[in-house]
Amino acid sequence: MVESPVADPAQAARQGDEGAPDCWLVFDADVREALDGLRPGDDIVVLTWLHLAERNVLQVHPRGDASRPMRGVFATRSQHRPNPLGVHQVTVLAIDDLRIRVQGLEAIDGTPIIDVKSALGAHGQR
Amino acid sequence: MVESPVADPAQAARQGDEGAPDCWLVFDADVREALDGLRPGDDIVVLTWLHLAERNVLQVHPRGDASRPMRGVFATRSQHRPNPLGVHQVTVLAIDDLRIRVQGLEAIDGTPIIDVKSALGAHGQR
Repeated sequence: MVESPVADPAQAARQGDEGAPDCWLVFDADVREALDGLRPGDDIVVLTWLHLAERNVLQVHPRGDASRPMRGVFATRSQHRPNPLGVHQVTVLAIDDLRIRVQGLEAIDGTPIIDVKSALGAHGQR
Repeated sequence: MVESPVADPAQAARQGDEGAPDCWLVFDADVREALDGLRPGDDIVVLTWLHLAERNVLQVHPRGDASRPMRGVFATRSQHRPNPLGVHQVTVLAIDDLRIRVQGLEAIDGTPIIDVKSALGAHGQR
């Protein structure tokens, strides 16, 4: 689960590089072993379930800008989509057992975490 | 669903830039509107459900190399993990109604598609 100071979706930054605050990723004890090897400074991809998204929306105005024509959600980054998964590339700041602090993740407090992966770097796979 | 010439997991490239073949993404008619706005040349992120992965694996030898120490799956790109989602950044080659041809997606034939997003480019959001 994401533990963030942002509790109101209206306050959440649209993308992480637009001012999202640092937050904690909080894991269940039964996946403790899966976290082994993560280190501060690592770039990771966090997959979340955007639990407040509307799943019956197929088209949106990109970035909520009504002056732009409607576009299919698969051609946007809208949170509203049939399977509302969030993909967030972030940097690990600190690790405290089952809690991982990351920089700039644009999800509100309480967002479920589905998966975490090592990010593909410029030098390929680790 | 992914339609790929690769049907055997042992033949699948470990990552898309290591020789994965072009393949088709095939969508259901009920999400036709969500595809509107996608064009050849677009970079997209495809999320898949890696249906053959082992969900009870928490640690692996990175890249299957037994000479490397075991590491938590959240610090790797292993397909084996509690929620086996695949994240694939690929380029759209062609679009034929509900079928989208993409370059270099490392998933075997029949892999379910969960979501598609516009990739974040060097110039930000579209």
